[in-house]
Amino acid sequence: MIYLDNAASWPILPSVMGVLGRSLADDYANLSAAHRLGKDLFERVEVIRQDFLNLVDAPQGYQFYFTSSATESNNWAIWQRAFTSCDEILYSRADHPSITVPLEKSGAKLRNIPRHMDGRIDQNQLSDMITTDTKGLFVTWVNGQSGHLEDVAALAREAKRRNPEIYVHVDGVQGFGKHAISLRDDAIDSFSLSSHKIGGPKGIAGIYFRTMPSKLLLHGGGQEHGMRAGTPPFPLIVAMQEAAQWMNLHRETLWAKMQQLNQAFRSFFSTDKIISFPFLEEHCSPYIVMLVVRGVSSDIILRHLEMEQVFCASTAACSSKIKGTNPTFLDLRIPEDLHKNVLRLSFGQQNSLEDVKTSCNLLNRVLQTISLLTHKR
Amino acid sequence: MIYLDNAASWPILPSVMGVLGRSLADDYANLSAAHRLGKDLFERVEVIRQDFLNLVDAPQGYQFYFTSSATESNNWAIWQRAFTSCDEILYSRADHPSITVPLEKSGAKLRNIPRHMDGRIDQNQLSDMITTDTKGLFVTWVNGQSGHLEDVAALAREAKRRNPEIYVHVDGVQGFGKHAISLRDDAIDSFSLSSHKIGGPKGIAGIYFRTMPSKLLLHGGGQEHGMRAGTPPFPLIVAMQEAAQWMNLHRETLWAKMQQLNQAFRSFFSTDKIISFPFLEEHCSPYIVMLVVRGVSSDIILRHLEMEQVFCASTAACSSKIKGTNPTFLDLRIPEDLHKNVLRLSFGQQNSLEDVKTSCNLLNRVLQTISLLTHKR
Repeated sequence: MIYLDNAASWPILPSVMGVLGRSLADDYANLSAAHRLGKDLFERVEVIRQDFLNLVDAPQGYQFYFTSSATESNNWAIWQRAFTSCDEILYSRADHPSITVPLEKSGAKLRNIPRHMDGRIDQNQLSDMITTDTKGLFVTWVNGQSGHLEDVAALAREAKRRNPEIYVHVDGVQGFGKHAISLRDDAIDSFSLSSHKIGGPKGIAGIYFRTMPSKLLLHGGGQEHGMRAGTPPFPLIVAMQEAAQWMNLHRETLWAKMQQLNQAFRSFFSTDKIISFPFLEEHCSPYIVMLVVRGVSSDIILRHLEMEQVFCASTAACSSKIKGTNPTFLDLRIPEDLHKNVLRLSFGQQNSLEDVKTSCNLLNRVLQTISLLTHKR
Repeated sequence: MIYLDNAASWPILPSVMGVLGRSLADDYANLSAAHRLGKDLFERVEVIRQDFLNLVDAPQGYQFYFTSSATESNNWAIWQRAFTSCDEILYSRADHPSITVPLEKSGAKLRNIPRHMDGRIDQNQLSDMITTDTKGLFVTWVNGQSGHLEDVAALAREAKRRNPEIYVHVDGVQGFGKHAISLRDDAIDSFSLSSHKIGGPKGIAGIYFRTMPSKLLLHGGGQEHGMRAGTPPFPLIVAMQEAAQWMNLHRETLWAKMQQLNQAFRSFFSTDKIISFPFLEEHCSPYIVMLVVRGVSSDIILRHLEMEQVFCASTAACSSKIKGTNPTFLDLRIPEDLHKNVLRLSFGQQNSLEDVKTSCNLLNRVLQTISLLTHKR
């Protein structure tokens, strides 16, 4: 089996599995308990919290909280300001639904962030759009569909230069651990991440806030410095720390490997007549590659590929129920008639060059089979 | 080491650890993914969801949702109705903070549920308090501090008889799996439970709703039937199912064992001069026993016990930061001057009669040591 859907969820890293297994067995106390077992876990969480702050070079004042998913983190960021219908917010329809859906329900005046024809955010146009009426800027570090990698730190700095009052949130889910970032500029107000996108377990995620959040998330026993009540799942927390540390330690090696896999895939099809790559390699994270297969529905390709034990995606998992026009694709400037022809491959540390070569050959064979079946090729 | 703080968090059951470990390794796909790996997990979650509905005998119409903690479940139940300052709500100050804190912030007119001198809810008085103005009733099935076990199904039926429009929520956290319940009466509007109180992992919990909830919890990719967005943590879900099934299968054996442990503890100190049991065994779940140690601060006892490797609690973990007067104890009719003298022992499946006997002897020795140190006994 070849799993090329790592942007939807990474298999748990071997070292994380070790840490998680031990902690599930040993660290069963409730960290709010008054005895030593509880207090020890409480103190360990505070050390882990600091570790997460260090990982992004967060200056004094930044807070880090554990949540149950990046969706929760993104929702929480949006709840920080009570946006009214007079407030102008800049966002992308290409953002994850956990950003777009609550923003679209917020009643605020939404303006879509302009993009170049190549899918990248148009920084100059965006900058010109920011006025004193602009109350929020929501940007995605690495687009989960296309892989577009944006310089979110620069975007945040420019936004704050134009309007120091603007709230800047970064969806860091597909970038955290895989790319380097620093919050030292103090320009990013909140930044979300998820454990299961970097080889940690599902059910744990996090968010950075530049200052104490104004609205707390869950009410009750006062956990997470009073901001998110509920028994913190210590084993998941320590497992996410291991995943983040492992990724940090191996970032450059991984980057090089992903580039190799990505390039191998692109090269194989570089002269193909029906497969094309709508976005440039140098604009994207090497962890994700998007392709368009002209004339063949991605649903059919996915079905054929999975019969060959190759698993990839047509769209982000959270948007997999969308049929027809896809707002993310539209925003990324993919012509509407091609939306049903998009495939996304996303690589993880467990994938080898051999996996990619095998997948390329299988995809080729699958396309020939489909072509024979439909007499179209 | 003897761990007698199972009401704060149970160690993970051996069979659950097996299921969880396998699932963490194998079930890494995102259940929202369009390929077979995702679809299989999606379908398995729907089967597990139905299993949870069956476990409480839920009639047609009931929904079950996975959440990240019982705090989240309890908060979600409270958000179902937009309570105003005109609305009267019945609750107990002895409830868990994830009920009391958001209710106290809701602005509604709160009335405390009356109790007998023995700490039980006074069903007749409660019934008389319910009028057409009463918009909500929040009751706890098993009090996490005293172990009081209430007939919540009967309370809900009576409430609905008095006012069919009343919203009835049951905090089922300390009862679920350990005691039998049926929702077949259709009188309970919502019911919360937690995995880590029954030998499942932390980070997963659930809630039953009688009808579709009116307010959704998290916005985004439409998971959990559109009610709680975010990638569902499949391994945690299947582990919680195993815990619930195991508890269901062994309920009577466990009940008998807990009664044995509970009685052994109570008997040992039945004629003790400074230890007393404020609540009757027959009113309480056998999983929890509360005691008062006259004249000795529970903090000091806990510290001495933990030096002997025995771990128990003075108050619920989520209230462990409360000093002085404890609203739960007050509500349970424990005189204020004894609040600092309360201990709570809570038993789990891993505890043996030997554990209890050893703990009794150690507690006795600890009290003698403290008495020698303070020349008081």
